[in-house]
Amino acid sequence: MRARLMQATIDCLVERGWAGTTTTLVSERAGVSRGAQLHHFPSKRELVVASVQHLADQLNGDLQRRHDEAINGRGHSTRKTLGLLADHFTSAIFVASLELWVAARTDAELLEIVQPMERRWGREEHRLAVELLGVDDTHPPTRALVQGTLDMMRGFGLANTLSDDSRRRGRILTEWAELIDANARPAAPTGKTG
Amino acid sequence: MRARLMQATIDCLVERGWAGTTTTLVSERAGVSRGAQLHHFPSKRELVVASVQHLADQLNGDLQRRHDEAINGRGHSTRKTLGLLADHFTSAIFVASLELWVAARTDAELLEIVQPMERRWGREEHRLAVELLGVDDTHPPTRALVQGTLDMMRGFGLANTLSDDSRRRGRILTEWAELIDANARPAAPTGKTG
Repeated sequence: MRARLMQATIDCLVERGWAGTTTTLVSERAGVSRGAQLHHFPSKRELVVASVQHLADQLNGDLQRRHDEAINGRGHSTRKTLGLLADHFTSAIFVASLELWVAARTDAELLEIVQPMERRWGREEHRLAVELLGVDDTHPPTRALVQGTLDMMRGFGLANTLSDDSRRRGRILTEWAELIDANARPAAPTGKTG
Repeated sequence: MRARLMQATIDCLVERGWAGTTTTLVSERAGVSRGAQLHHFPSKRELVVASVQHLADQLNGDLQRRHDEAINGRGHSTRKTLGLLADHFTSAIFVASLELWVAARTDAELLEIVQPMERRWGREEHRLAVELLGVDDTHPPTRALVQGTLDMMRGFGLANTLSDDSRRRGRILTEWAELIDANARPAAPTGKTG
């Protein structure tokens, strides 16, 4: 029942935004009585805090899954890896996170929760991008290229909320793969074959 | 009085976000009576539509001013140009525009206004970035590099809403200037000296 309430909260954030998300709507959507909802989460804030944590878990699982898919596929080109990252940053999870992010900007209590969470996500996304792209994160220009690429991905996520931006994004990513291949330093080989 | 109401609307968006912006708050902040406010803008939507247009004018003026500053300074390095663009995308105008953008995602009537406006801004920003950086926009890899850089700037704007992100941003931009200098095709010289 907790999981159902949290999923309903996220769905509600995606469909109606922060302001349109109410505990009444969430309990209706989850098919849970108001009494039961209040028992699990006495306030909107508590409901959202738990759901955001749930969102973070989903997000990490999502990135990890994409990573594993890429590894299984072996010959994962830079272009394919960039496509996986872009899919991640234009997903419903990104949209829900954007709603929280913007709401937190003008809500000090929410900011206290969202700020460290976004920082943690940022670090996790960076670590995965470095691993997926197979580049050397200790090389400052390469590190900056990965960071800038992730900020670009967030820009893509933002652009995609207003209209389907996939064609423009696809064209940029095709050129971007060449940019990365030409400018990023590959990671040192792991000791395995040495 | 119209200008004062519109400026107050934008200030209100920046400080309190979309949901926290009300016509009552705006008229108080502008020092305008409710009657006069209702005479100029009968509804919140009308107030915001006009203010968004005002915002667009400010935005264009802001970019143009930065452009002129760069031209006056003559020896405007790629790093300096990137700094000017980043300042623009982390300004109060970006924040107000982000509030509108996110609100429009779940408000069909607002979306009808914001979508073409954001498209126009995007084109204008791209044109100015090409001019400021002095690169050849007809060269596909260069065009994609400028587009990706502007999406990165929007990502910077987003990151900066939660905490002061200027140190991280500065480090990325220093590497980014070298990336652009090494990978973008310079614009063909204008006929002036030929």
